Formats: sequence, structure tokens, C-alpha cells
Amino acid sequence: MTKKNKIVHIVNGPNMNLLGEREPEIYGCETLERLNVRLSEYAAKHGATLTFFQSNHEGELVDYIQSLEASSRIIINPAAYAHTSLALPDALRGKRLKAVEVHISNIHARESYRQHSYLSSAVVGVIAGLGSYGYFLALEYLLKNYD
Amino acid sequence: MTKKNKIVHIVNGPNMNLLGEREPEIYGCETLERLNVRLSEYAAKHGATLTFFQSNHEGELVDYIQSLEASSRIIINPAAYAHTSLALPDALRGKRLKAVEVHISNIHARESYRQHSYLSSAVVGVIAGLGSYGYFLALEYLLKNYD
Amino acid sequence: MTKKNKIVHIVNGPNMNLLGEREPEIYGCETLERLNVRLSEYAAKHGATLTFFQSNHEGELVDYIQSLEASSRIIINPAAYAHTSLALPDALRGKRLKAVEVHISNIHARESYRQHSYLSSAVVGVIAGLGSYGYFLALEYLLKNYD
Amino acid sequence: MTKKNKIVHIVNGPNMNLLGEREPEIYGCETLERLNVRLSEYAAKHGATLTFFQSNHEGELVDYIQSLEASSRIIINPAAYAHTSLALPDALRGKRLKAVEVHISNIHARESYRQHSYLSSAVVGVIAGLGSYGYFLALEYLLKNYD
Amino acid sequence: MTKKNKIVHIVNGPNMNLLGEREPEIYGCETLERLNVRLSEYAAKHGATLTFFQSNHEGELVDYIQSLEASSRIIINPAAYAHTSLALPDALRGKRLKAVEVHISNIHARESYRQHSYLSSAVVGVIAGLGSYGYFLALEYLLKNYD
Amino acid sequence: MTKKNKIVHIVNGPNMNLLGEREPEIYGCETLERLNVRLSEYAAKHGATLTFFQSNHEGELVDYIQSLEASSRIIINPAAYAHTSLALPDALRGKRLKAVEVHISNIHARESYRQHSYLSSAVVGVIAGLGSYGYFLALEYLLKNYD
Amino acid sequence: MTKKNKIVHIVNGPNMNLLGEREPEIYGCETLERLNVRLSEYAAKHGATLTFFQSNHEGELVDYIQSLEASSRIIINPAAYAHTSLALPDALRGKRLKAVEVHISNIHARESYRQHSYLSSAVVGVIAGLGSYGYFLALEYLLKNYD
Amino acid sequence: MTKKNKIVHIVNGPNMNLLGEREPEIYGCETLERLNVRLSEYAAKHGATLTFFQSNHEGELVDYIQSLEASSRIIINPAAYAHTSLALPDALRGKRLKAVEVHISNIHARESYRQHSYLSSAVVGVIAGLGSYGYFLALEYLLKNYD
Amino acid sequence: MTKKNKIVHIVNGPNMNLLGEREPEIYGCETLERLNVRLSEYAAKHGATLTFFQSNHEGELVDYIQSLEASSRIIINPAAYAHTSLALPDALRGKRLKAVEVHISNIHARESYRQHSYLSSAVVGVIAGLGSYGYFLALEYLLKNYD
Amino acid sequence: MTKKNKIVHIVNGPNMNLLGEREPEIYGCETLERLNVRLSEYAAKHGATLTFFQSNHEGELVDYIQSLEASSRIIINPAAYAHTSLALPDALRGKRLKAVEVHISNIHARESYRQHSYLSSAVVGVIAGLGSYGYFLALEYLLKNYD
Amino acid sequence: MTKKNKIVHIVNGPNMNLLGEREPEIYGCETLERLNVRLSEYAAKHGATLTFFQSNHEGELVDYIQSLEASSRIIINPAAYAHTSLALPDALRGKRLKAVEVHISNIHARESYRQHSYLSSAVVGVIAGLGSYGYFLALEYLLKNYD
Amino acid sequence: MTKKNKIVHIVNGPNMNLLGEREPEIYGCETLERLNVRLSEYAAKHGATLTFFQSNHEGELVDYIQSLEASSRIIINPAAYAHTSLALPDALRGKRLKAVEVHISNIHARESYRQHSYLSSAVVGVIAGLGSYGYFLALEYLLKNYD
Repeated sequence: MTKKNKIVHIVNGPNMNLLGEREPEIYGCETLERLNVRLSEYAAKHGATLTFFQSNHEGELVDYIQSLEASSRIIINPAAYAHTSLALPDALRGKRLKAVEVHISNIHARESYRQHSYLSSAVVGVIAGLGSYGYFLALEYLLKNYD
Repeated sequence: MTKKNKIVHIVNGPNMNLLGEREPEIYGCETLERLNVRLSEYAAKHGATLTFFQSNHEGELVDYIQSLEASSRIIINPAAYAHTSLALPDALRGKRLKAVEVHISNIHARESYRQHSYLSSAVVGVIAGLGSYGYFLALEYLLKNYD
Repeated sequence: MTKKNKIVHIVNGPNMNLLGEREPEIYGCETLERLNVRLSEYAAKHGATLTFFQSNHEGELVDYIQSLEASSRIIINPAAYAHTSLALPDALRGKRLKAVEVHISNIHARESYRQHSYLSSAVVGVIAGLGSYGYFLALEYLLKNYD
Repeated sequence: MTKKNKIVHIVNGPNMNLLGEREPEIYGCETLERLNVRLSEYAAKHGATLTFFQSNHEGELVDYIQSLEASSRIIINPAAYAHTSLALPDALRGKRLKAVEVHISNIHARESYRQHSYLSSAVVGVIAGLGSYGYFLALEYLLKNYD
Repeated sequence: MTKKNKIVHIVNGPNMNLLGEREPEIYGCETLERLNVRLSEYAAKHGATLTFFQSNHEGELVDYIQSLEASSRIIINPAAYAHTSLALPDALRGKRLKAVEVHISNIHARESYRQHSYLSSAVVGVIAGLGSYGYFLALEYLLKNYD
Repeated sequence: MTKKNKIVHIVNGPNMNLLGEREPEIYGCETLERLNVRLSEYAAKHGATLTFFQSNHEGELVDYIQSLEASSRIIINPAAYAHTSLALPDALRGKRLKAVEVHISNIHARESYRQHSYLSSAVVGVIAGLGSYGYFLALEYLLKNYD
Repeated sequence: MTKKNKIVHIVNGPNMNLLGEREPEIYGCETLERLNVRLSEYAAKHGATLTFFQSNHEGELVDYIQSLEASSRIIINPAAYAHTSLALPDALRGKRLKAVEVHISNIHARESYRQHSYLSSAVVGVIAGLGSYGYFLALEYLLKNYD
Repeated sequence: MTKKNKIVHIVNGPNMNLLGEREPEIYGCETLERLNVRLSEYAAKHGATLTFFQSNHEGELVDYIQSLEASSRIIINPAAYAHTSLALPDALRGKRLKAVEVHISNIHARESYRQHSYLSSAVVGVIAGLGSYGYFLALEYLLKNYD
Repeated sequence: MTKKNKIVHIVNGPNMNLLGEREPEIYGCETLERLNVRLSEYAAKHGATLTFFQSNHEGELVDYIQSLEASSRIIINPAAYAHTSLALPDALRGKRLKAVEVHISNIHARESYRQHSYLSSAVVGVIAGLGSYGYFLALEYLLKNYD
Repeated sequence: MTKKNKIVHIVNGPNMNLLGEREPEIYGCETLERLNVRLSEYAAKHGATLTFFQSNHEGELVDYIQSLEASSRIIINPAAYAHTSLALPDALRGKRLKAVEVHISNIHARESYRQHSYLSSAVVGVIAGLGSYGYFLALEYLLKNYD
Repeated sequence: MTKKNKIVHIVNGPNMNLLGEREPEIYGCETLERLNVRLSEYAAKHGATLTFFQSNHEGELVDYIQSLEASSRIIINPAAYAHTSLALPDALRGKRLKAVEVHISNIHARESYRQHSYLSSAVVGVIAGLGSYGYFLALEYLLKNYD
Repeated sequence: MTKKNKIVHIVNGPNMNLLGEREPEIYGCETLERLNVRLSEYAAKHGATLTFFQSNHEGELVDYIQSLEASSRIIINPAAYAHTSLALPDALRGKRLKAVEVHISNIHARESYRQHSYLSSAVVGVIAGLGSYGYFLALEYLLKNYD
């Protein structure tokens, strides 16, 4: 397999577009735009292509996931929808996506209602608490295990 | 009462547009389009008219329900929103719709979080587990009790 | 397969013999006897034969279910035993019956202890809240899917 | 500070556009349009400007909140999303809004699932049960404490 | 109204026929037969007639309750079925009986699973912990309020 | 034993002094004063003496119970304190009183927080739902079992 | 209706007399006395009369509420008794008072045991988190809706 | 003590008469009749006599237990009634039977509602998961400890 | 710092005045008066002064705590109010008292409702189960750490 | 298969080495050493060999289990670790051992926290309450089903 | 009894050897070694001997407790094992030790999982929140009540 | 900072030494030894040094963590102790370690008792479900953020 065919979709949920402005003591000061640029550079170096999608709408996130090719690779930070949406994991399962769930903060050490993610049952694995670095690790994982 | 005035609205929730592709071992192989055609044929035979609406957006489903005439007949498969939405049953109550809730799979025999539907408290009745046939039964019920 | 071989067993649980007398604002005014006559007429029109059984005894219901041929078709309104009996679903599973559970009232919108049915995990599907019409829909389903 | 600079944003959630039509025994007979006119008149008298936004879409509500200037004043009736949305309080926190949550009905005396609001942890205070008058009280509070 | 028409039905549930033999430190040493004789004597003195029924079968208890005239007076000690049967309260409601529930022991001070009675929601009142005397008090109540 | 020495203390908790005025559809129209007169007459007929105490103060109720002779007979309607006071049952136990708990309404069929009484673990028995008649039955029980 | 007949009763529960001294970072620095003066001034301006009552005793609060004329207007800050008293809401219901519950702090955003108020089920509405201003808003509401 | 006087009663609950036919992957292929024969042979070899009773009726099981001599030895597989019956353990206690509870499958590793047995509090011990061999072990235990 | 200025307040809750009479197998045979004498002697030896207060009234306990100088030292046995009062810990916090909570019995090994104390969150520490000796230990602690 | 190759490992958890001294009213008077001798004699008679291991250390028990040959036969009394250890069942599964869990006392009739065993999900079956005899029954089972 | 025979065992659980280094804002700055020296000095003054044991191993703590003479006096700070170990209380009971449980911090005011101690049901009493002074108080108690 | 000083400690909990043998369908076929070799090679390439520690003993894991220099970097797979140990997170906090928690399987999609990790509240972040690759990602993170 050649590296140049690798595609990974980066999907961010509600309020992630506020990154950099939103509670920076928890989420850091980098904007989502800047993060995406850095992710693209990383992907380029590894011969991969990324797409980016962010929405505050549960329905748009479902629409987008459905629009992907079945069995695609996806990195998804569902943000608040991790805890309140069943439509998102149903969509992941419906398209048989190979997904890694990323959370910037360590949700397991926050409010009790943030400690459970409905999405987790529909993904390969979860990375939480490692800041924006979690996206890079998820990307590395998906690229290394791309087959 | 003459049959030709009967109208029933068929509303489907998130991921139902994936029917046929989505986990076919649970939801079957027929697409929503094909199912809708068959439902229309059935309705036509019984002198009734159907409308069809599907959305992955909780808000669009609420918008649509609000756009219906008060006290309309409706068959609604809320899919995942059965378990996470209170806005949908509030909309049904707000318009005093006569609704039948349909689930293709037997949600009462699946994961615990699928066994309770908030929508059920706002509908006349529920049909679950009878596959796409459930829509026909709901339609038959509403047409027979159309007054 | 010819239609005349089709047999469906109609089983009713405790207090269903009070139908017509019992809380008519919830359960309606028709007696079980009259309902059964109507069901028989419907079945006859579709070339099917029905048997009828009602008991207030959990044990008799289990006995009866056990007396049926394995893999028989059955429509069962477990009434209060839906919520308190594990012996009934064990019997259904033991005989591998193809069952549809029917409730006249919308149990999902009533007291919390009526919202969960142990039986539901052992049946194909559930119809609730559509009044006595639910039996006809269940019958139609079983006859259409009789193979 | 001069009064003429005061801006307060009035945000209403799902089914609030049905006001006047929706369960009037609970929510009253006045439409949202009429209420907004009255609120505008009240604000005008106090030298303040109001903006109005209503949506049945959780995502649109989040989008709108994000579009506001940081630390803005807001009166928000989240309706059903009070109980099911974590994205909304995350957005309020993300923009550091000074918000008052208003409910027309006394949610603390209704169904158990309406008695807890996720939004409440992200607002200054809550007014419930005082009908549409609650908006005026919230407005008065925000104008008096505008600094 | 003349006293001689007064009829009260005394119904005892599972293991009550063991009275006198069963855990006498809890339930006392008098047999059910002897208790019934004493109750009959009391009733005779007050110009009332009693009937007696005891069964270990939930179904027989339901059958018996159904066999009574609608709106009859009944004293019922459901014993263990207080905690596990929904068919019994459904039967009481179905026949609109005027019932007093009696427990010989103070169930509210025993194992947690004995502290809740499903039957209580379908009776006029409950007497617990006053030994066999509770039957006499229930009887007195029903006779004094017989109209 | 001579009857003339028998003393029973009638203790009523918060809001029982409103009897007759308080939610008469639940608690009836007779005042506490009138009820006490009737109880006194009944006691007199049976050669017993009653004392009466009512308070809206948990502490005064505890004080009063402590002021009684150890092992006294008492009829206590704790009203709301049944559900929120542990000091009252501790006082009953501390004085080894022989108590019967009375509730005018059938608390077992009301709001869930009224279905459990902390007091019940410290009394001989409980009578609920039989209206003011419950006091007479409790009194009869205590007088008959006075030794 | 003339304004001069309007009476509103201001009732404060335990530790509210410590206002100004008690955890000022939560409850502010103004004393209850000063607040009452300001409320009186406000009432005077609107042609209304206020009465003031504060107690740390649940029983005294119940006594006081009972002493009011039936259907009176009342603003009540139950403080800690919101979460532990059933006698208070029973008293409000017993006198059919028209009550508004006020909390200085946003109880919905504090310890879990402060997030539920038993009182709320017996009041018209609730205002929480708006500091002492909440009393003025409650007063305004009651005066505007005084009929 | 001579061996020939030893009597052990073998009691089986609902659906155990389906043994061999019922979900053989869980319960095995041997019928209850065949198992009883083997148990009889085993008992005979050890100079003991067995009686056999099976019923799908909770009430018949209670009747049967009551018909046994007080303090008899009994092996009881309550099947589904383990989880839903309080009348059965009450009967065991009422007759002071020395009982061993047997389950063919390892109920502790199945559905959560099968993991708790109300019966267990009224028996000497429990054997689960060892197939039909569990009956032989229970029998051996009772015979070895027969005194 | 000189010892003679040290003041510690000993506060006892409901039923503690029954000490010596109340369930002596749990609480011992010494009266509260005698205990207080011994505590005074101990304090005198250490150059400290004690005050004593006991009440069965939650409100009086709150009143008393409020009457103390801010930041006073206090030993408090809340008895039953440990488990049912939020007004008491609010008062302790309101006055910023340095408190040690004492229980004569080991509440952690008694009924489940006695195992949690709301008061504990507002005190420095807790001593339970060491009988009346716990008061001396608490006193020693407060005197040794008096600064 | 010849009998002489049969090996069964007897593993005992914490405090089982105190057998005979530890709460003999629950666990009996025989020491673990004596029990092991008797088990060895029994095994020898049936041509089997036993090994014995006891430890109070969860880690040593895991180490020991890991040291056994995969798919070995094992009788394990996990004692308190039944309720608190997940490492032990993970070890059993990791080595695919054929295990029988034994408890001397009837844990199902003791404190609620002893009624659930995490280990049970990783064993073939469970024997509880039959005293030290349970080991012999487990041994007999494993030897009879050794293949 | 002469004082010189008095022996008390000081047992500390996991991470207590980090005392002084571990979260000093919670646990203080004194090392365990220094604390032990001070405890020894105190004991010497009172003619008593102490032994010291600390371990991070649940099993070693059980081993050590078992190695003590039956009915010995022991002060035990179980640290984290208070909340996760059932083997420790079983060992205390097994040796019938007279134990006082000590916690440096006020565990009742910390995370919810630290508010319940399984050990508490097996000890005489508990001291929490009084810092290292709690050990001295426990020691004083045991020496004063040494008989 | 120069790379050659970087040290990361790899700590594995119970049954991780069975890697390769233990349930390979969940945990994969590679042994822990082989994994460690690969991790060492990776570290060497990045100028870092690794130490390795595995134990089945909760106490040894605590001992080991305590032996590390304060504020060390650590990758820890607590395995089953994630769910049952509070001593481990207490140790991490006690030494102020910068830890990443790794799970080979997606614990969030397994048995409910595996979905919560007590350790997570004491670590920087968590990686689960990415197989042994998770260790490399955690290592990369710690090295990149080594300062």
C-alpha cells in the first residue's frame, strides 16, 4: 500500500470552534484553525491527507459521518455530545468507521456527567487528557495501522 | 367520512436514511426509499395520502412536527432520539398529534439505554421489533381509527 | 405453503378475563369473549386457525405455553405478569416460540413499574397502546410472516 | 455608564415558538411574538436594547451563543434542552456570558426528568414558574446589575 | 340500611394457613382456623356475615377476587404477594373493591424487601404490626363505614 | 386489672392542628378538637383517660415524648415528621414507649417520599388510610392489649 | 382593586438572620435588617405592606405560616429547610398560600443535596441565584399579580 | 441411626420439566425423568428414599413444601422463582426445612436479574453451575449430614 | 497564651438528655449531668472553662450556635440531627466555628441511615464509638490546639 | 484416561488460615491443616493428587494461579477477595482454568456486600454454605468430570 | 493490673510511610518515623509498650494482624484500604482485636468514595480529621480502657 | 534540555505478565518481554531511558511508585487494579508523578465494572483500546512534553 492514499477525517463537536478562547485553563490557548494546520503538516509529512469538519449541530455531525465512505478512518472529538448523543455512535456503527475518540481534557477526572461517553462503545479506542497532542497520537495510530 | 381525505405523516429520525446499509443484521436490507414506496402503495390502496420526512437533526424534526396541522396523524420512528430527546415529545404534545411510535428492532431486548423511550409518553402507542412491517401496522391502525 | 395450516395461539394473562368490566377508561368496554370472536372471524378470512387461552395463574400460563408445539406462533398479553414473571419468558425461550407481546394500554406512559416488561426480551416484538386493535396487528404480522 | 448601551439577548429554545398554542394550561395563551414586543417596550423604557433568537435546534442555539460578544448579558429559556444538553452550558461558559435561566412553568414541580437542569450550573440564577413575567424579572435584574 | 346484609370477605395469602406453626415468634401461636372462628363470632355480634378464603396461589387469589361482587368489602392479608404481585392490585381495581390490607407483623420494621407493598396503592388503608387484632380492627372499620 | 388506670397519650405532629381546614379532600372536614372530644368520649366509655398533645415542632414532640413515663401507651400521628425525623423514633425507643403510628391518609399510595416512615421501625404497628377512624382503632388496640 | 390593601409576608428560614456575617462570598454583605428596610421602602412605594418573620425553627416557621390568612401572598426563603422539611410545604398547601420561593445563591449549582427543594412543589415559582435582588423580583411579581 | 429412614425431597420449579428440550446449550440434554431415575439409583445405593415434585406453579410449590413434615430435608431448584418469589422462602422458613438450593447453570454469571436469589436467605447452602451433578452433590451433603 | 482564657462549648442534640436512661446497652448508664460534671472537672484541671447546652430542638441548637462568638471552639454531638439537619452545618459554617463532632456509639457500624452525617462536612474532625470518653478526647484535642 | 494423573489445586484466600480460630460460629472449628489432610485422604482414595496454597495476599494468589498449567483444575475459596478483586478472575480467565468456587458460609444470606462475587463470572460453578463439606463436593465434581 | 503490661499495636496502611512528603496540605509535614517516636514517648510515660507496623500491602497487613495475640489492642490507620478491603475487617474480627480506626484527614468531608469505610464495622470506634493527634487520642482511649 | 537525561518508567499491573498468553483475542499475541524490547528500542532512538516493572501485587506496585523520584514520568497500565485500587492513585499523588494511564483494550466498551478507573483521577491522561501501540503513544507524549 502506498502512503499517498491514506485519508483521515478530523471531526470536532460543539464548542471546539471556540478552542483558544474557551476556558483556556482547561482547553489551552491554541485555536482549532492553528491545530488543524499543524495536523495537516504532520499528515503531509506522512503522506496522508486530512479532511476537517466541525459543527455544533448533532445532526450535522451525523450527516457528515454518513457522507463518509464506509470503513473510513476518523478522529472524533465529540465534546459534549460524547455524553448526550446516541445518534453519533449509531452513525459510526452504521458506516462501520474505524474511529479514535479524542478529548483534550481528562474527562475521567472531571464532573461525573463527563466521565461516561456513549460514543466510546462505537470506537476503536479513546485518548483523553493529553491536550491537543491527543489528535497527533490518534493520527499516528490510524496511519500506522492503515490497511 | 370519505377515505380520500386521510393524511398520515411518516417521520424518521437519525440514521434511518442509512436503512439497508446500516447494521443489516438488525435493521434489514431494504432501503428507506423502497420502504416509502411500498408504504405509499399501501396508502393509495386505502385511499390515503402519505408525506415523508427524515432527518438526522433533532431540531429539524421538531420544526417539521410543528409545521403539521394540529391533531394530525403521524408515524414516527425517533431512532436514537427516542432515548435522548425531550424536545420531540414536547413538540408532539404541543401540536396534540395522534402519533404511533415505531421501532424496527425490539428495543426492549437491547442495551439498557435503548429500553426507555422519552417519546412513548407522548404517543398513542408503540410498535417495536416487527421490522419495517411495523410501519404498515401503524398505518393500518391510524387509517382504521381515523375520525 | 397453504394458508389453511396456519395456527396462532392467543394467550391472555391475569385480569384480562375482566375485559369490558375492568377499568374501562383504560381497557375499553369490549369483553374478551367478543374480542376473541372478532379475532376468529379475522383469522378465518385469512385461512388461519386460532386457539384461545386465558388464565390468572402464572403456572397455568407456563403449563399452557409448554403444551404448545415448539416454534409455534403466539400472541401473548401477559398483563401484570409482564412486570413480575421470569418463568413466562423462560417458557417462551424453552419452546422457542415466535411470540408477539401485546398490551392494550400504553404501558410506557403509565406507572414506572409498568414500563419494564421482563417478557419483552423473549419475544419478537411488542405492540402497546393501540387497544384491542393491537391483537389484530400482531395476528396480521404473524400470518404475513408465517413460514 | 449610560443606559443606552445596555444590550440583553433573549434566547428561547425548542417549542417556545409554539407559545400560545402549546399546552396553554401550562404555558399560557400569549404568543412569543407578543411577549417579545412587550419585552422590547419594557427595555425601551429602560434605555436598553434587546435581541431575540429562538430555535428548535440545539446546534443553532450553540452557534448563536458563540456569536455573541464575550461576557454579554443573556436571558435564556432552554426549554427541553435544559435537561438534555451539555453543549449549551459549555457554550455559555466558553463565552463567559452573564446568563439568567427562565422557565415559564415551575419545572421543580413537574415530571422528575424536568426537575434537573444541566444549564443551571452555568448561569447566574434561575427563575421558574412565574409565567412570562419571569422574563421581565430577569431583564430587570440584568439591567439593574449591568456594569 | 339494616345490619344483616353486611358481608365482608376475609382473604389470606401464601403461608397464612401455617399460622400458629409458622415462625410463632413473629406471627403468634393461634391458627388461622381459630382466628376465623373468632372473627365470625365478632361479625355475628355485629350482624355481619363473613366469607373466608386462603390460598398459596397468586392465581387463585385473583380468581377469588374476581368472583366477588363489584364494590364488595374485603380484608386482605396478601402476605408475601404484597411485595411481588401486581396481578392482585389489578384485580382489586378491576372489581372496584373496598379493601383493607392487614399484616400481622410490622412489615415496615422488617427486611427492606418487605417494606414496600404493591397492593397498598389499590386499598383504602393498611394495618400492620397489630397481630391478629388487625383483622378485627379492619372488620370494625368496614362495618362502621358500610354504606 | 381495673380499667380506670388506663392512660393513652394522643400525639399529633405538624399541620394536624389544621385538620378540617387542611386539604379536606385528603384529610376530611373534622377539626382536631372535635376529633379529640370524640376520642375522649370513647375512652371514657372504656374507662380510660387520654392526654392530647399537638405541635408543629419536632423538638417539642421529642420533649413531650421524653416527659412521658417509660413504657407508656401512645398513639402518634407524626405527619410530615414520619419521613424526615430520626429524633422522634429515637425518643420512642429511649422511653421504651408502646406506640401505634396513625396516618389519616393512605401514605403508601401517595408521593414516593411519603411512602417510607422512619418512625415505623420504633412502633408496634401502623394504621394508615382509614381516616380519623384510625385513631379509634389504635386506641381500641392499646386498651385491649393494656397489661 | 386598590393598591393600599396589598400585603405580602416575607419569611426567612434558618441562618438567614446571619446574613451579612454568614459566608459573605456566597450570601453577600448586607444584613437581613437592612434588606428588610429596603424591601419595606420598595413596598411602600408600590402601596403595599410587608410583614417580616425569620426563624431558625422549622416548627416556628410552620406555626407562622399557619397563622396567616388562607391564600395570603408570601415570599419564603426556606434556606436549609428547603432540602429537609416536608412540614413546611404541607403548611403552605394547608393554607393554600400563593408563595414564591427565593434563594440568594444558585442552589442548582452547589452541592448535590442543595439541588432539590421539597418546598418547590408547593409554591408558584422559584427564584435562585440573583442575590437579595431575588426578593424584590418576587415582591414585584406578587404585587403585579395581586388579585 | 440406620440409613434406611433417610428421606430427601427433590423439588423443581418452573420449566424444569422441559429439561433436555429447554435451551440445551445451557441446561444440557438429559430429561428430568432420566435425572430423577439416576438420583433414585444413587439414593437407593445409600439407603435413602427420594420423593419428586415439579411444578410450574408458585402456589403448588408452596402447597407441596407445606405438606412436608417439619424439618424435612429438601433439594430445591426454584428456577425462575428464585428471583421473583418471596412466598417460597417464607414456606421453607415456616416449615423449618433443611434445604439446599441447586441451579444447573451458573446464575452468578448470567443476566443481572438472575444473580440474586430471594430463596438463598432461607436455605443452608447453594450449588450453582455444576449441571445436573449439583443435585447429586446436594443429595450427598444432606445424606452425610442427616441427623 | 494563658490557659485560663480557654473556652469550649459542649453542645448535645436530641435525646442526649436521656443519657443513662436511653438504650443503655448502646449509650451507657451515665447521665448527661454526671458526664458534664466530669468534663468540667477535666477542663478546670486544664485551666479551661466549659459551657453546656442541650436541646431536642434543631432550631434552638441553631440559635445557640449563632449566639456563640465567631470562631469559637465547640464539641457537638448532634445525635439524630447528624443525619437529617442541614441547618446545623450551615450554622457552624456561618459562624466559622472550630468544631469536633462526637458520637457515643459507632454510627459507622449501625443502621445505614446513621452512617452518613451531614454535619461532618462542617467540622474539623469526628470521634465515634468511644463512648462518653469521646468528649474528653475532643476536649483534649481542642485545648491542645487552642490558638 | 487413568485416574492416577488427576491433579486438583486447592487455593484458599485471606483469613482462611485462621480456620478453626476465626468466628467459629460461622466457619466451624476445624483448622485448614486438618481439612487439607482429610481432602488429601479423599483424593488419594480416588487416585488423585492435590496441591495446597493459601495466602492473604491478592498478588500471591494471582502469582500462584499464573504458575499453574493452563486449563488446570482448581478449587478456590477466595474469601473476602471474592467481593473486592478483579485481578483474580482475570487470572483464572488468563490461564483458562476449570475452577469451582467454594464458600464455607452461605454468603448469599449475609451482609449485602458479601452477596456478590466478582470471581463467579470466571468459574464453572459455585458452592456456598455447606461448610468444609463444600470442598469435598467440588473435588468430587472435578474428578468425575476430569477429561 | 499493672501498667507495664500494656501493649498497643500501631498499624499503618498504604502510603502512610510517605507521611510528611505526601500531600502535606492534607496530611501535614511530620514523618511517620517522627510520629512514632512521639507516640513511643507518650506510651512510655504511661507505662505502655507500642509496636509499629506499616505496609503498602493488604496481604501483609492481614498477615500482621493475624500474628497478633487474640484480643490485642490495636490502632489502625487503614488509609486507602479502608474503602477497598474486606480482608482487613475480616482479620480484625477473626482475631477479636479491640481496634480504634484513625484517619488523619476528615474522610467524611472528602471525595464520596472516601466517606465509607468497610473497616469501621469491625472496630470499636473511629477518629478522623484530627491530624496525627488522633493517634494519641486513640492511644489514650485504649490505655484508659485497658482491662 | 538534552534528550539523554529523559527517563520514563513503564509499570504494568496484574496479569500483564501473561500478555501473549492471556485472552489473545482481547490482548493480542505479543508477550510483555517483546513489547518492552520494542519500547526500549523506541526510547533509545529518542535518547531516552526506560525502566520496567510489573507486578501482580497492589502493594508492590505502590512500593515501586513510592521508590521513584518525585515528579517522575510514568506510563502505567493498572489492569484490574484500575477498578479496585485507591492505594495506587494515592501513591501517584503522593509522589506527584506525571503519569499516563494505558489500557490495551477499550475498557469503555467492556463490562460495566471495567468502565470506571479510580486511577484516572490521578493521571494526566488516558489511552485505551489502541492495543500495545498505546504504550508508544504515551511514551511519545511524555518525551515530547518532557520539561
